[in-house]
Amino acid sequence: MTGKAIVPLIEYEMADDAVRAVYDDIMQTRKVDWINNFWKVLAHDPALLKRTWETLRDVMAPGALDPLVKEMIYIAVSATNGCEYCTYSHTAAARSKGLSEAQLMELLAVVGMANETNRLANGLRPPIDVQFEPHG
Amino acid sequence: MTGKAIVPLIEYEMADDAVRAVYDDIMQTRKVDWINNFWKVLAHDPALLKRTWETLRDVMAPGALDPLVKEMIYIAVSATNGCEYCTYSHTAAARSKGLSEAQLMELLAVVGMANETNRLANGLRPPIDVQFEPHG
Amino acid sequence: MTGKAIVPLIEYEMADDAVRAVYDDIMQTRKVDWINNFWKVLAHDPALLKRTWETLRDVMAPGALDPLVKEMIYIAVSATNGCEYCTYSHTAAARSKGLSEAQLMELLAVVGMANETNRLANGLRPPIDVQFEPHG
Amino acid sequence: MTGKAIVPLIEYEMADDAVRAVYDDIMQTRKVDWINNFWKVLAHDPALLKRTWETLRDVMAPGALDPLVKEMIYIAVSATNGCEYCTYSHTAAARSKGLSEAQLMELLAVVGMANETNRLANGLRPPIDVQFEPHG
Amino acid sequence: MTGKAIVPLIEYEMADDAVRAVYDDIMQTRKVDWINNFWKVLAHDPALLKRTWETLRDVMAPGALDPLVKEMIYIAVSATNGCEYCTYSHTAAARSKGLSEAQLMELLAVVGMANETNRLANGLRPPIDVQFEPHG
Amino acid sequence: MTGKAIVPLIEYEMADDAVRAVYDDIMQTRKVDWINNFWKVLAHDPALLKRTWETLRDVMAPGALDPLVKEMIYIAVSATNGCEYCTYSHTAAARSKGLSEAQLMELLAVVGMANETNRLANGLRPPIDVQFEPHG
Repeated sequence: MTGKAIVPLIEYEMADDAVRAVYDDIMQTRKVDWINNFWKVLAHDPALLKRTWETLRDVMAPGALDPLVKEMIYIAVSATNGCEYCTYSHTAAARSKGLSEAQLMELLAVVGMANETNRLANGLRPPIDVQFEPHG
Repeated sequence: MTGKAIVPLIEYEMADDAVRAVYDDIMQTRKVDWINNFWKVLAHDPALLKRTWETLRDVMAPGALDPLVKEMIYIAVSATNGCEYCTYSHTAAARSKGLSEAQLMELLAVVGMANETNRLANGLRPPIDVQFEPHG
Repeated sequence: MTGKAIVPLIEYEMADDAVRAVYDDIMQTRKVDWINNFWKVLAHDPALLKRTWETLRDVMAPGALDPLVKEMIYIAVSATNGCEYCTYSHTAAARSKGLSEAQLMELLAVVGMANETNRLANGLRPPIDVQFEPHG
Repeated sequence: MTGKAIVPLIEYEMADDAVRAVYDDIMQTRKVDWINNFWKVLAHDPALLKRTWETLRDVMAPGALDPLVKEMIYIAVSATNGCEYCTYSHTAAARSKGLSEAQLMELLAVVGMANETNRLANGLRPPIDVQFEPHG
Repeated sequence: MTGKAIVPLIEYEMADDAVRAVYDDIMQTRKVDWINNFWKVLAHDPALLKRTWETLRDVMAPGALDPLVKEMIYIAVSATNGCEYCTYSHTAAARSKGLSEAQLMELLAVVGMANETNRLANGLRPPIDVQFEPHG
Repeated sequence: MTGKAIVPLIEYEMADDAVRAVYDDIMQTRKVDWINNFWKVLAHDPALLKRTWETLRDVMAPGALDPLVKEMIYIAVSATNGCEYCTYSHTAAARSKGLSEAQLMELLAVVGMANETNRLANGLRPPIDVQFEPHG
C-alpha cells in the first residue's frame, strides 16, 4: 500500500566495501548491471546479505536439478506463501531462463492442485499407506 | 496421533459403482492394483472424488512440463504447507518416477531457501523493481 | 509422533481454584462431564485459560451466524492451517451440533477450492476489479 | 505494489472461442455482463480456465450447504491465507448474496479465534482426546 | 492495490459511546492522540473491538517477558504469515519501544532461518528425538 | 503417523568425514554427546548439512539479540507454521537456555494473538497509517 520498504534501500554509491563486494558478485554472477531491491534492504546487515546471497547463488546453480526447474520450485513456494515481491522477481528470473507462458500456467495449475489436495488431506486425515513408507 | 481418519475408509468391496469406476481408472492410469487412502476418504463424496481424481490425472500428465518436475512442485508445496500425508505420498510417487536422493535433497534446499527469503521480503518489504514488472 | 504434550496436562484434581472455575464453566456450558486436553495444557497460565475460554464461548455462541456455521468456519481454518488437534476436535464438535457427512464433504470441497484459487491469484496477481471495491 | 498482473489480461474481444465460451457461461451463471480479472489471467490456459470455472460453479452451487455459507467459508480461507484479491472478490460476492456487516464481522471473529487456538495447540501439542476420535 | 478497507473506517467523531470508550483507552494506554486504522475497522463490531483491544493490551503488557521481546515475536509471526499491515504497524511499535536496526535485522534472520528449517523438517520428517520429549 | 523419516538417518558410525566434521562441530558447540535426527537426515546432502548448521550456529549466537530471545522467535515461527519436530526441538532448546513455564505460556499467548490479528487485518484490509510509514 505504502511503497516504502521497512528500512531504506542501500544504493551502491552509499554502500561500504563489504556490501559492494556482494553487489559486485551478484552483478557478475547474473551478468546484469543493477541490483534488485531485495539485496538493498538486506544490506543493512552485511553478514546476512553475504550469507543469503552466497547460499542463493549456490543453491540455485546447476546441480542434480536444472536451474529453470529450481526457479519453478521457487515460484511454487512463493505463490503458496503469497509473497508478492518473490512472485514478481522469481517469475521474471524464470522467464529470463526460458520459462514459457505455457510452462508458467501449467506450473501454477500444479501449485493450485497441490494446495487443494493438501487441505483435503488435512481435513480428512487419511492414514499414511504402508506402500508410501520410505524404505531403509 | 490417532491413526483414524475423520471419515471411514471406503474399500473397493463396499464401494458403489460410481466410486468403483474412479478406483478402476486410478489403478489403470497408475498401473497399480491398490488404491491409496486419500481416495478412500474422498469417496464419501463421489462427485468430489471423481472431479479431484480427473483433475489430478490431467494436471499431472505430461504437457509443457515433465511429470517428474510436476511431482517435485507437489512436494515443494506440500513441504511448505506441512502436509504430512501429501509429503509421504508425493515423495513416493516422485521416486517411482525416478527422483534420485540427490534431486530430493536439492529440491528441499530450494524449498527451504524460498521459504526463508519469502519471509525476509515479507519483513523488509522492498518495493518491486521496475525491471521485474511484467511486459504487455 | 511422541504422544506427549509440551507441558503436562493439568487434571481437575490437581487444578487450583481459578482453573477449576473455568473447567466448571466449560462443562456447564457444553453440558459434558469432562475437559478436553486443549484446556488442560492452557491451564498452565490461568489468565490465558480464562480469557481464551471466555472468548471462545462468546464468539461461538449464536449471534448473526448459526453455531454450526461457526464450527464449519473453524474447521475450514484448521484444515487450511493443518492443525491436527483442531481438526479432530472441531469436526467432533460440529458433528455433535448436527453436521452431516454430506455437509462435511461439501465444506472441505470449498476449502480445497479456495486454497487452490488463492494460489492461482497469488501466482498471477490480477488487479482487483473496481466492481469489487467496497463502497463507502 | 505494481498494479500489473504477471500475465496480460485477456479481454473478451481478443479471446478465442474456447475462452469466450467460458466467459459466456460465467456471465450467464452469475447474471452479470462483465468478467472479473481472475478469469482474464487464467484464460492464458483455456483448459485450466474451463476446469477451474466449472469446478467453482459446481462447488459453490446450492447443495448440502447454502451458497452464502460457502462464500463465508471462502472468505475464511482467503483471510487465513492472506490472499488480497480473493478477500475483496469473495467479500463482494458474499455481500451480493446477502452477507450483512454483522455477519461479516462475526465471521472474521471466528476466523481470528481459530487462527489463534490453532497456534496454541501447535505450540503446546495436547494429545487428541479419545472422545474426539471418529467412530466407524 | 485498492487502498480501500473492506468496511469504512469509523472515526472518533462518528463513533458511539462504546467505541469511543475503547478508543480513549487505546490513546491513554499508548499515550498517543490518534487511533490507527486497525481499530477503526474493528469498530464495526464494538464487542470484537473491546475484546481484541483488551486482550492485546493485557497480552503485550510487561510480564514474564519484556514488551520489546513481545513486539519482536509479533513481527516474527506477521512476517511468517505475510501480513503487510501488521508488519508495518508492529515494526513501528517495536521501534518506538527501542528496537534498533541491528536487532530488527537479526530478528528477521532468525525468522528466515526458522522458516527454512521448518520446511526441511517437513520435507524429510525426522522422528522426534527422545531427548526432546517433554518431562513430566 | 509412520515414525519413519523420508530418508534413512545417517548415524555417526556410517557417516563420511565431511559429515562427521559437522557432527563434531555440532556436539562441541552445543556441549552435548549426541546428534539430533534433523541433522541425520540433512546429512544425505553434506553441503546442505554444513551450510544449514553453520548458518544456524551463527544466526543463533549472541549478537544484538539474546540467544534465549532467538529461541523464542524460533518457537513462534514453528508454532505458526505448525512444524511438529521444530516445536519439540526448539522448546527443548529454549528450556535448556532457561525458558520458564511462565515465559513459554506468555510467548504462546503473543503468538496466538498475532495470528488472530493478522487475520482480522487480512479480512478487513485497513490501509496502512501514515504514522506507521518507515522514515528515511
